[in-house]
Amino acid sequence: MPDPTGPDSSKASGAPPEDPRLPLTGLRVVELGHYIAAPFATRLLADLGAEVIKVEPPEGDPHRDWGAKLNGQAVWFSVHGRNKLSVTLDLKSEEGRRRVRALCARADALVENFRPGYLERIGLGPEVLREENPRLVIARVSGYGQDGPYRDKPAFGAIGEAIGGLRHLTANPGQTELPPPRCGVSISDDLAGMYAALSLVSACWGRDRGPEGKGTTIDLDLVTSVFSLMEGMLPEYGLLGRVRQPMGAALPSAAPTNTYPCADGKWLAVAGNSDLIYRRLMTRIGRQDLADDPRMAGNSGRCAHAAELDAAIAAWTRTLPAKDAQEALEAVQVPCSRLYDMRDCVEDPHFRAREMMLPVQDPLLGAEVPHPAAPFRFEGIAPRDMIRWPGPAIGQHNDHVFRTLLGEEEKTL
Amino acid sequence: MPDPTGPDSSKASGAPPEDPRLPLTGLRVVELGHYIAAPFATRLLADLGAEVIKVEPPEGDPHRDWGAKLNGQAVWFSVHGRNKLSVTLDLKSEEGRRRVRALCARADALVENFRPGYLERIGLGPEVLREENPRLVIARVSGYGQDGPYRDKPAFGAIGEAIGGLRHLTANPGQTELPPPRCGVSISDDLAGMYAALSLVSACWGRDRGPEGKGTTIDLDLVTSVFSLMEGMLPEYGLLGRVRQPMGAALPSAAPTNTYPCADGKWLAVAGNSDLIYRRLMTRIGRQDLADDPRMAGNSGRCAHAAELDAAIAAWTRTLPAKDAQEALEAVQVPCSRLYDMRDCVEDPHFRAREMMLPVQDPLLGAEVPHPAAPFRFEGIAPRDMIRWPGPAIGQHNDHVFRTLLGEEEKTL
Repeated sequence: MPDPTGPDSSKASGAPPEDPRLPLTGLRVVELGHYIAAPFATRLLADLGAEVIKVEPPEGDPHRDWGAKLNGQAVWFSVHGRNKLSVTLDLKSEEGRRRVRALCARADALVENFRPGYLERIGLGPEVLREENPRLVIARVSGYGQDGPYRDKPAFGAIGEAIGGLRHLTANPGQTELPPPRCGVSISDDLAGMYAALSLVSACWGRDRGPEGKGTTIDLDLVTSVFSLMEGMLPEYGLLGRVRQPMGAALPSAAPTNTYPCADGKWLAVAGNSDLIYRRLMTRIGRQDLADDPRMAGNSGRCAHAAELDAAIAAWTRTLPAKDAQEALEAVQVPCSRLYDMRDCVEDPHFRAREMMLPVQDPLLGAEVPHPAAPFRFEGIAPRDMIRWPGPAIGQHNDHVFRTLLGEEEKTL
Repeated sequence: MPDPTGPDSSKASGAPPEDPRLPLTGLRVVELGHYIAAPFATRLLADLGAEVIKVEPPEGDPHRDWGAKLNGQAVWFSVHGRNKLSVTLDLKSEEGRRRVRALCARADALVENFRPGYLERIGLGPEVLREENPRLVIARVSGYGQDGPYRDKPAFGAIGEAIGGLRHLTANPGQTELPPPRCGVSISDDLAGMYAALSLVSACWGRDRGPEGKGTTIDLDLVTSVFSLMEGMLPEYGLLGRVRQPMGAALPSAAPTNTYPCADGKWLAVAGNSDLIYRRLMTRIGRQDLADDPRMAGNSGRCAHAAELDAAIAAWTRTLPAKDAQEALEAVQVPCSRLYDMRDCVEDPHFRAREMMLPVQDPLLGAEVPHPAAPFRFEGIAPRDMIRWPGPAIGQHNDHVFRTLLGEEEKTL
């Protein structure tokens, strides 16, 4: 029986309200996910209205323990788990596996990111699950994919970034003792999760065009997801033998455009690389001599003297906080921006006007939590209406899902 | 009349074959796109089987002029334009706008990335287009979104990265004269394009559940797309006042894990931060003294002496090319990877076994062009079957689209 004082008694423990305006309302997705990639895929689907049933081990997704905490709870999970139903199942028990099969029998799709082969080993492979539900779409996310020689390699952090080709580019060119920085966010997991969501919904659209539609299995991996962003670099190498090299903060073919240090330790990115903008920029920073210098009249001349121009601009930016330097240059129509940290984002009037941060009451954290808006805005749906509830407690929806959805007797709960 | 010697005479100028196995076969999408974001969205949809009609000005998408060229043609466009139909229309002419309306009247969806307000100004706003086709889904991609105080700001390169919060993180911590590098790829356009594709297909799924489904308009922007990857940073700042700072290549809470310089100028990322792996790593690099050092027995001790450990590892990596250093550490089960450039990707046995690079005959380039595989793999569909044809010539499908699809008389072409 649910404890009337526990989280099971909150409104969300019953059948949470559906919003018929959201595009994926009516799509049921089971998540056998942990950490980032699969849960990010289902978070996007849940923002879009899907009914996502997150299956967690009795101790919860280990992601619930990641990062800064309030009230003993990781604050990231408030966002990462939002709009989802949480149920607890022990996949090592026959009872747990039976319920997974029962959930998948009633679902449109499954998203999972176990190591390749694991679901098959515990008797929950695609063939088994589609025996009961031939319409089930299964999106599988892994480090290296479901086959190939690296399939079983441990996916240590940031492999996608390193092996997919991104981290080679996120670097300063030439000689430096400083290694290329990490991207700073879980970019390869995020990309794979986004592709999982896109290919899953596409498979559902194709399946649902006719009454006889069949499910399918989709193989997503971190390396290919990152590799997909490598622009024209593969044909450039294959046809012309060119290997794209990192450019740091500058561009080799335009000047001055770079990122400059400011008095408060922050950085200002400036795009001063057109003839007219260049003159306005140099005049504003008090270097009329360079504005009028015939060597700098065209882009090729400026590229040849980029170091001299960068030094002049940096000498000026170093005298001002980044925000003031930005305002001074914007006043003379020089495109620029400081590199925003989270405080800059929160204080920015455009972020506020666009409701990019939304307060959400979170009973687990015991606080009103600022959530980022969903990254897609639909006509007639306010950003706040796409956040129906924050990340749930572990197993908060066991009762609703097992009893109402699976139709189990109370005694088996 | 089509010229029998020109590109219009190629097979693809007729009705290109559809593949009923692809999930989005039967979905018709009009692209009013240029450069990256909207065309990347439609490239993903086209890889998934959608019939994408790319509307270009008579001189072509300016993206066709970007990057390295062969045979006078940019090689990136072979990938960026693949699986699409190209038609040329002059939106400044009444005839061009009439054809856009006619195409949208017969389409499921439109993707566009003009400056906000432009389509309305030329009489092709959502209300106009949905008057004829109430089912039309419209995905609009812009730098800052369709409203808000920055809506009309020029979207100079990499704004999403800078303002969405990513570039602040892709940096080395503390004092350095080197600015944070750019991400190295068009990450904010790519992310916005991916979200456009996902939300568009989701809107079509929701619309097509019933016969009376209506279209909708979706607002995507580069800044929000990047901001969506900021993990738990918004609640961490809002609830705890913490502003996430860049970490460079190291991690503050685990050691040794960093990226080390090798003899060939390349970099090797090493994750040696568990007690057992640490000992194997140190033994392999000939530092048994550090393997046995009681100060380094636990992670907290190693974090306190991270600089000493990093120096020892770097002294070893500097003696070897990155590939050899990686093989030596992998032989003793230390997770590591060099930072792959495009040559490393192409030569990697896993990339080859997974068919991540596929040769495509490209008549425009007059060459067999290596294409990256689609980032999603569907059961029973070979990666090469998802690349039906390379980026088409400008207007290559005018005849097919205007005559067959719009049913125009030959004389009007």
